[in-house]
Order: sequence, then C-alpha cells, then structure tokens
Amino acid sequence: MKIYLHDIPLPDAKARFVEALLGAGLWERLGTELIALDEWAVGRVLAEPVWAKISSPHYHAAAMDGFAVKSIDTSGALLTAPITLFIGERSTSGRAQPAIARYVDTGDLMPGWADAVIPIENVEPINHDGTAADDIRNPHDIRIREAVTPWHHVRPMGEDIVATELVLPAGHTVRPVDLGAIAASGHDTLAVARKPRVAIIPSGSELIEVGENVTPGYIIEYNSIILASQVNGWGGKAVRLPITPDVVKEISKVVMEAAEENDLILLNAGSSAGSEDFSAQVIDSLGDLLVHGVAIRPGHPVILGMINRTKTNFSETGDHGMKVPILGVPGYPVSAAITGEIFIEPLISKWLGRKPCEYDSIPAYLTRKVTSPPGDDDYMRVAVGRVGGKMMAAPLSRGAGVITSLSRADGLVVIPRGSQGMQSGTRVNVRLYRPVSELERTIFIIGSHDMTLDLMSQYLVEGNRRITSSNVGSLAGIIALKRGETHVCGSHLLDPGSGIYNLSYIDEYLPGVPLKVLSFVNREQGIMVRKGNPKFITSLEDLAKSNVTFINRQRGAGTRVLLDYHLRKSGIESYEINGYDMEEYTHLAVASAISSGRADCGLGIAAAAQALELDFTPLYKEKYELIIPSEYYESELLSPLLSVLQNEEFRNAVSNMPGYDVNSMGKLVYEVE
Amino acid sequence: MKIYLHDIPLPDAKARFVEALLGAGLWERLGTELIALDEWAVGRVLAEPVWAKISSPHYHAAAMDGFAVKSIDTSGALLTAPITLFIGERSTSGRAQPAIARYVDTGDLMPGWADAVIPIENVEPINHDGTAADDIRNPHDIRIREAVTPWHHVRPMGEDIVATELVLPAGHTVRPVDLGAIAASGHDTLAVARKPRVAIIPSGSELIEVGENVTPGYIIEYNSIILASQVNGWGGKAVRLPITPDVVKEISKVVMEAAEENDLILLNAGSSAGSEDFSAQVIDSLGDLLVHGVAIRPGHPVILGMINRTKTNFSETGDHGMKVPILGVPGYPVSAAITGEIFIEPLISKWLGRKPCEYDSIPAYLTRKVTSPPGDDDYMRVAVGRVGGKMMAAPLSRGAGVITSLSRADGLVVIPRGSQGMQSGTRVNVRLYRPVSELERTIFIIGSHDMTLDLMSQYLVEGNRRITSSNVGSLAGIIALKRGETHVCGSHLLDPGSGIYNLSYIDEYLPGVPLKVLSFVNREQGIMVRKGNPKFITSLEDLAKSNVTFINRQRGAGTRVLLDYHLRKSGIESYEINGYDMEEYTHLAVASAISSGRADCGLGIAAAAQALELDFTPLYKEKYELIIPSEYYESELLSPLLSVLQNEEFRNAVSNMPGYDVNSMGKLVYEVE
Repeated sequence: MKIYLHDIPLPDAKARFVEALLGAGLWERLGTELIALDEWAVGRVLAEPVWAKISSPHYHAAAMDGFAVKSIDTSGALLTAPITLFIGERSTSGRAQPAIARYVDTGDLMPGWADAVIPIENVEPINHDGTAADDIRNPHDIRIREAVTPWHHVRPMGEDIVATELVLPAGHTVRPVDLGAIAASGHDTLAVARKPRVAIIPSGSELIEVGENVTPGYIIEYNSIILASQVNGWGGKAVRLPITPDVVKEISKVVMEAAEENDLILLNAGSSAGSEDFSAQVIDSLGDLLVHGVAIRPGHPVILGMINRTKTNFSETGDHGMKVPILGVPGYPVSAAITGEIFIEPLISKWLGRKPCEYDSIPAYLTRKVTSPPGDDDYMRVAVGRVGGKMMAAPLSRGAGVITSLSRADGLVVIPRGSQGMQSGTRVNVRLYRPVSELERTIFIIGSHDMTLDLMSQYLVEGNRRITSSNVGSLAGIIALKRGETHVCGSHLLDPGSGIYNLSYIDEYLPGVPLKVLSFVNREQGIMVRKGNPKFITSLEDLAKSNVTFINRQRGAGTRVLLDYHLRKSGIESYEINGYDMEEYTHLAVASAISSGRADCGLGIAAAAQALELDFTPLYKEKYELIIPSEYYESELLSPLLSVLQNEEFRNAVSNMPGYDVNSMGKLVYEVE
Repeated sequence: MKIYLHDIPLPDAKARFVEALLGAGLWERLGTELIALDEWAVGRVLAEPVWAKISSPHYHAAAMDGFAVKSIDTSGALLTAPITLFIGERSTSGRAQPAIARYVDTGDLMPGWADAVIPIENVEPINHDGTAADDIRNPHDIRIREAVTPWHHVRPMGEDIVATELVLPAGHTVRPVDLGAIAASGHDTLAVARKPRVAIIPSGSELIEVGENVTPGYIIEYNSIILASQVNGWGGKAVRLPITPDVVKEISKVVMEAAEENDLILLNAGSSAGSEDFSAQVIDSLGDLLVHGVAIRPGHPVILGMINRTKTNFSETGDHGMKVPILGVPGYPVSAAITGEIFIEPLISKWLGRKPCEYDSIPAYLTRKVTSPPGDDDYMRVAVGRVGGKMMAAPLSRGAGVITSLSRADGLVVIPRGSQGMQSGTRVNVRLYRPVSELERTIFIIGSHDMTLDLMSQYLVEGNRRITSSNVGSLAGIIALKRGETHVCGSHLLDPGSGIYNLSYIDEYLPGVPLKVLSFVNREQGIMVRKGNPKFITSLEDLAKSNVTFINRQRGAGTRVLLDYHLRKSGIESYEINGYDMEEYTHLAVASAISSGRADCGLGIAAAAQALELDFTPLYKEKYELIIPSEYYESELLSPLLSVLQNEEFRNAVSNMPGYDVNSMGKLVYEVE
C-alpha cells in the first residue's frame, strides 16, 4: 500500500519543482520596486546594480578645521622664519597677489585658489598689529612656521566614490552601512526585488488557535507562526490565514482564493496522513501535483505542486503568470520548519535575485551512536560545544514532533541517504544555527537529570554561558566524562556496598583522572502518585501490588540504582513489579507518565511531583554531586558556573523548591590530583 | 591647544559612561511588555524565562495513522497465526472483554484503554465475513500478524515538553522555532524587553537631506539613516529627527524635547570640530558632559554625557528616571557607524537584557604593511578571502570619510593602542561582518585598475562569487601574486625593450611559478581633458606646457610605465611636466581630478573619460591581461570567473564601453608549467 504516492530523493524533488517553475516563468526575480532610501530599506535585496551618480566627496573638501591656503605660498616657512598669510580671497585677476588664507571647517568646499589646509592648531592667529588674536577662527592674519604640500588635509573629490563606479552589485542584501554608500553616491531611491507574498494556510480539524482552550485531542496550531516568521525573515511577506477544517471543498476554496493574490502557498496539513491526503487531492484538482513524499526526515510527507490561477488580472498587479507554486507542508512542527529551510528559503531567495542562504558549518564529533533510515536524508538536530580541544555534537531528540529539538539545536547534521547511522565519535559537519562564538560559551552537563539545572541555566545567562544538558543518567554521564564528551557530570550514584555516593564509580571509571567532586544539592527521593493517592501507594512494598503499574528510570540512572539497592534490601524482585521495564529518562517524564495515567507510581524527586501536582511520599535523602575534571574546573568557561554555586539568590531559589537542601552546595567533596 | 577636552582610552570612557548610567538606574533592563505570540515576536528579547505551562503533547497522542489497541491483546499474533480485533470501544466494566481496536489519525487522543498503535499499513481490514474490506479506515474488524509492545507509535504526554520545565531563558532573542516551543508550552503571550527609543538628531548647517539638490560645500546627511537602521537592527526603535542647524540654542531645544520622550539621544554633529564643540556645549549646559574625545580611530571626537529631564511624567510612561544618556556621534560616516558598534549596541543590549553582540572572528594575514596612531585603538576595515591555504586580510581605505571602506569590508582588525602599526604578513584577528562561507567565495584581484572588473563583479553574482579588487597597479599586483596574496593579477605592463606586455615582468618576478596568462581586454589609452579641451592638449608634448597641470598614476601602474616609455621615446623629461609627482591610484580618480579642476589632464582609458564626461584623445592601444597561477586557475573558486570570460552578454557589455575590444578575451597568451 502506498501511503506516499512518491518517495523520491531530495535532488530529484527539487529538480522537478524547479522545472515546473521554469516552465511557468517563475524561476527568476519576481519583480522590482522602487523604494525610498531610508532606514527601512535594510534587508531588501538590490534588483539592479548601484552605479555612482555622483562622486563622494562631490567637491574638494577641507579635511580639517583650519586655513585653506595655496601650498606654494607656504614654501620656505620655518620654525625660525615664519610666513604671514593675510586673511582674504584671492582675486581672479592674473596679477601677482599677496599670500592669503581663509578659515574652513572640516567638510567645507575648498576655495578655488587653494590646494591645502593648515590645521587650526598649527597656525598662530594674529591681530593687525602682530599680537596674538583671541578669535582663532577669525583673526586678521595668520603666521605659519611650516610649509605644506599640495592636497595636504584636503579630501579630493571622488576620494570615497567616483561617479559611474560600481557601489553595490544587484543581488546584494542591504545593510546599514550600504545605505550610507548608496546615499553618498547620489541616490535617493533603491530598486529592490519585490517581496514575494506567501499565504500560509493551516488545515486540520484537530487544530486550535494559540490562546484557545486546550483539551485532549486538539493541537495548538503554531506551525503557521513558525513558517510566517521564517518567510518574513527570508525577505518574503507572509500572510497567515485562519485554520481550515479537513474538508476538501473548503480547503480548495481557500487555496483558490489565495492563489489569486499570492506568489506562493503553504498548505500546512494537520499531522495526520489523512490531512495530507486532502492536501494532495486539492492540489491535484486545482493544478499539478508534482511530488508527493520526499526521501528526507523529518519532512517526509512534503508535497510540491502548482496551482492554476483562474482570474487573469495578474498583469495589472505585476504578477508573473498563470500558475502559483504550492507546498504541502507536513504537520509535525520540526518537519514544517525544516521543509521551510529546504524548499521555501531557496525559492524566496531566487525570487529576490540573491543566492540561497548558506549556513556556516564546522566539523564536530558525535557524542553518541545514532541510527538513521537508510532511504532518507536525515536532518539530525545537535547541540554543539567545545570540550577540551574538540567540538562535540550531541544529538537531540529525533522526533519530528519535538519542537524543542529545534529550539535547543545549535545546528543540523545531515545523515545522507544510504547511511544507516553513525558511530559515536564520528567526525560530522554541523550546519550552524548559532555563531561559533556562542558555542564557545556552551557548558555541557551530561548525566543525571535534576531540575535545578534548568534554574542554573537561567542564572548563567548573566555570566554569558549556556548550559546544554543531556539527561542520560549518572553512569552514562561518568562515561561521557571518561570519553571527553562533557565538561561536567551531574551524578547521584549510590555505592550499594559503602552507602557513599559517586566515589567508587569515579575510581572504577575514571582512574587517575585529575578531577574535583563538588556537592551540589541534597534532595529527597520518594514515591510519586496521582493526587489523592487512589491506590494507596506509600512504600516500596506497594510497588509490587498486582493492581499497580510502576514507571521506571532507565538503566544507569542514579534513581534506578537507588531503587535497585532498596529493592534488594527489601527482598523484592523486579519481575514482581508491573512496569519495571518501562523506562523514562527524566524525573519530569516519570511524573508526566503518572499524571497522565500511563502509570500509577514512580520513584523520583519531590520537585518533579510538585511541578505536575502529584502526591509525594519521601523515602530517601540522597546526594547529587557535580564531577568536574580539573582541566575544566580551572577554565574560564566554567568559572561563572562555580560562581553561581555561591550565589545567594540561586541558593535560595533552589532551597525554596520542595525536597532540596543546599547547605553543602559548592563544597569540595573529593579530589583527584 | 586642546581641541578635545579629553582623549581617554576606550575602557575608561566606557567605564565612566556605565558609572553614570548605574547612578541613574539606567544600566539594567529598561522595562517589560507583554506581546502577542505571533510571527512579529521574532527578534524580541525575552524579559522572563519561559516555563512550560502545559506539557507537549498535552495528552497521549497517536503517532501514526492506524488502530489503537491494548498491546496485551496483540501478544501471540504471528504471520502464520493472525489475531482478529473487533472495531469498537472497550467498556469500563471490569468483565473480560474481546480484543478490540479503534481507528486513530496521527495526533488523535489515544483511547483510555489503549496503549499502542498499529500503523494502518500493518493491518488487514476485513468485513464481517472475513473478506478484505475496502474502507481501510472503517472496516468491520482487523486482522494483525504481529504483536506490538506498550507505547508503540504513541507520543506520550510530555514527550517534547513537560509542564514546569524551562523552555527558554530570559535574555534569549526569539527565533522562529522558539515561537513554536513557546506556543507548545501553553503560552499565548510573551514578556519581552521594551524596545529602547532612540532619537537621532543630525546637526550641521552644511547638511542636506537625501534627495535634495547637491551643491559643492553641502553634504548629504545619511549618518542618521545608518544609525537608525543599526539601532533598529539591534532591537531598538529609532526616530530620525530633521536636520538642526549649527546653532546652540536650536540644538538645545531639540535635545531637550527629545530627552522627554526617548531613552537615548544620538546627536550627530556635522563632521567639523566646530559642530562637535556645539554638541559638547549643549550637553554640558543640559546635563553632564562625561567624556569628550576617546582614544579610538575612527570615532575620536565621540562625546558621552547625560541630559537632565525637566518634566517628571516618566513614571506614567514607564520610563526610568530623570536622566537620559546622550552620545555626541562624530560626523564622519565611518566614525559614526563604528561609534554605533562600540557604544550604542552594548547599551541597547543591556537595556534589552541580553549579552552584547559578539562577532565571530578568524585569524588572517595582512596583505600589506599598515601604520597606526600609537595613541589610539585603530579600527581598520579589511577585505578577507582565502588565497591558497591562508586567509588574507587586505586593508581598505583608512579615511573616516570613506564609507565604502565599511560597505566593502568583510571585517575589522583592531590595532591596539601602543602599536605603531603592523608589518605585511602579520597574523591578525578579524572580527567578521560576513559569514565565513561568503569569504570562501571571494576572488582577490590585485593589480591594475580596469573598469570592466566592476562589470565582472556584477556578472559573478550569478556564479556565487565576489570580487575584491585592490587597485595597486600592475607591478604591485605581480608582487602580490609572488607573495601568495591574490588569486589573480590584472596587468598591462609594457616591456620597453620588446614592446611585449607583462611577460618579461613575469619572468623576472615570478620565475618558475606555474601560471597562465589570459588575454582580457585590449583598450585605448589616451589623454583625458575637461570638456571642450580648453587648454588644447592633444599630444604628449602638450603635457609639458607651462600652463598645464598633469595628474599622474602611481609608480608601478601600467599606465605610468606606458607614460614613461613614451616620454623617453619623445625625449620629454618628467620634471618638465607640472604635476608629474601628483599620483592617483585609479583611472577614475585621475578623471575625477581633471573633472574637478585639480588638474588639466591625465593619461587614462577612454571609459573613464566618458564616465566623467571628459574629452579624450586616444594615443595608444594596450593589452590588459589576467595573470593566474595554475593552482587557482584550476580551482572551483575561479571557475565562474573563467566562464564569465566566455559569456556573450558580458563580452558585449564590455565592447559597448568606449575604447574596448574583447576579440581575444579569455585566450591563453602564455603559460608556465
């Protein structure tokens, strides 16, 4: 059964689209408009080269405040043998004339007879009797004690720009200083590419507008906001239309109307394949369905097509023709945003007459193994930071529905078609979403999840650092430290033998590595249950009740170690617990599973229970510590983090969270030199 | 005499300013406003952290189109032993019930009894009699041949965002995808920093507005456009006020009014020190003059101060206090723009609650020696490109009045206080204005100036290349080739012995370097004079007339070599020619000197004469060639340039310029292997 009519490689899909656009006369600059030369012209794309109409300066200008002179009149002036110049004008008669000078401000037109300026601080202004004059700009005469050469302190006409020369090429995106250069060259308008009008149509009966009441089964429609702001940022003019229900007739009507007034239509289906089928039907009935399904992930269900216009008023409005391209944008938000980057940005750039956006890219090393569907180009979001000397790329969630995987991303790694994935440590190319300077300020914290890390992120903004935390569990964090993939590991691994936290694991996994272990927080672990505790779960023993479903943390998580330790002590076997094999990666995810009814209980921290309005029975108090290799501990990068540990405001904020005590925060617990 | 009351180092000037702002309670976020969550929120800076109000998904959602099932009902299903599930709903009674399934679209709320989805393509829809059903979404029953695990193809509540977690920190600048994450977490508004209102007051009696008639002595006022677009780009809200004449009383009035309604005032003096004195007087009389003159170049005359507000309605408008900072921005455009980057951007960022802009920087090697005033931090504009394996930084014009030095700049190199300059080849750090990817597409052409290079720039936009041409003359271009500082040298150096162009110089300066010499254009050199040729100059001999002033090209320029060759042949000595020592670096600059009356005649190309409406007497025909080391000739970087040489449209455009023939354009003239 073919869910996607086609599933063609990206270059082929693009080629098919471009061919159709070419055929419709739409693979070129859309049109030119003349706009005023003012601050609002920034970001517009020049439709024509700017050739200088006048020179700049457009006359010989004094380059200093001082006295305009004829340089030859100054020759022979010496410290010991000053020359006096009279203030006045040289007459136009050819007779021999006295040496004269005239006061000029910077920027003034040079008198025709003058070819140099003596700066005001290098002359002696004098009165008619030879005494020093008070009004230095308007003396009777001046005395000079140094000769000047021709064109000294004069900005000759054309010093900056010579009339007729190229100031800026067509296709250039105007920046603030460019406006200065264009104005200086005598222009008061700019010929720029007309902004492509892009209609964005969200469709789907399950969609609700931002701000509407949220009920299960309904999805907040925000793809149109992402797409509209992308389009505007790329130089287009986006128009967001209201949500259209999943009814072919209604979608058709909206698309047809949009086609009359826009250059491009983005039909954003709901995330269901059902919705996407509607999009394809509509496009097929109103024009040509070119591509249905592209071999990329996310973005797989993208549709490319052309809509036929029915009205023919296009020539009046300056529009191009009888066809309007349309994109069926997939419903998942990551798919929608990446579809924008892949298909919409290059089209808008073409229409503006500039080159498509090129992201800077840098090499980096993957922090973990990833798998990838071999049939697709796979756009993996990664967090990037420098650990030791190496740029590391940490893969973020792969789900097309996980918009935070994009908002948290520093860049994209494309795993090409044909590849089934990449090993940890593979050197990859990261297309950057952020400037490299920001990445150099990223602190990687890999290990156990603690909610105070979120809080710490906020306090580190002031210190100009970003935290990228990867919640893989304490043990995986220690292993990441060992592999040089993180600056800090947050860990609360109980040694079942000694009852001491972390140290035995450090000795085992990080032998001989110079490091410091700092106390961070002491926190309560306990049982989270739904409000009112309907199944009366208050002890470890209750987890084994037959009507109780538990949700666990993943292997290697400190909480899992804690659970296993106490289960063993209590003689409870894991198979006795329903859901022991169901794993989540964070306290909040466990709390969420309970809150939604997926499970009845789980082990976690009080703060997570409170956040999701669960009941909580405290069972154990544990130490959550930060393990930091000395190399990073002493680095400039980490110093703001160490300061935050001493920050009273931060400590108070943490101790106000339920179940936390910060008495030993920042204390050195252990050290390997 | 003190032209600048103070001349203090940049860090001290900044510290004095920040201290005054702190004292006035103005060194912090200005204020917060609540805006709608829509596409216009992009670029705003979060005033508060965004904590998730709801989870995303906010319910357990089907992740595929298919049938919701209870996973336990599917256990035991095998290829050879299918299980049939009835379409229906599980009742809430506790009785044993038949295995059932329900159709769900992607994104649908999972039924309470279900914990997995079987994708539609993995089921066999059947009618009540067991035959295959046509309506695959609405069959009587389904048959499955594979068991599924719990939560298979289900997006659990909180998969993306868990309620209460940190979505984005305060101080973050909102991007399109962030809007998605914020909407998904249940917000419909954003608390963002209020935009600082910045009044820009151009003052100077010599200034005229863009579009006004240009007459000598008047300067087109465009600094306010540069400053306004900078301010808007940095997140402020600029208001450009009309030009105020250089009258203290009028400036005072405008400043006082602006102080009531704005957060910052930029008083942009005319470029004369006179004007700047007015600024200082006004600031001193209306508040505190903090700094007058900073040890930076350009930007030296910058003034920092605080204006006292007279009205006290600030509390109503949400304003902060009784004082308003003011900058006396210098009049030269480069000074104004760089003052913006140094002083205004960090202040606006502080007011928005984010970190100041950090430019990415890269190491590069200077292409030539530069000198620098040792007392100042010197902001040198450079063009940057990769030549061979090395990033090269070519210093652009240093004049504070040369706005094209900024519009052409790829970045800035700061020569610190205390340094008198840097040698050619020095490794410097370039703060980039462009992404590195663009620099990698820069073709350096160093050597002789020819106007067709401007035209070629325009044609190369299509091929995604930028030309950075440095007009230093043919010989200096060959030397730049030798030193690995350029990809291409444009040269027309006549060998006086053989009458052959370039080859003898190549043999002398580039022995053994594998290279190609391509014919570019043949062009006419001749004498340029003012329209009507008032001094009857038509031959080389006329240059030596006593009433004639000549303007020359610099030593090493092909045109200079040509001149010297013919002077020698004609027996004319250089000292016989008035102005022989006056040098310009381009044909257009020579033409400009003649057009403005600075000289009567010069040797140059017909196109330059035509561009500036000069008369032209052709004297010689010469070959202008491109010298390209083989290493670059074969590179991907240069291939679009080589294509342009074959481009009919380009060749026609060149041959339409006066004095050019393109018959041999692109032909291989000479080769060293």
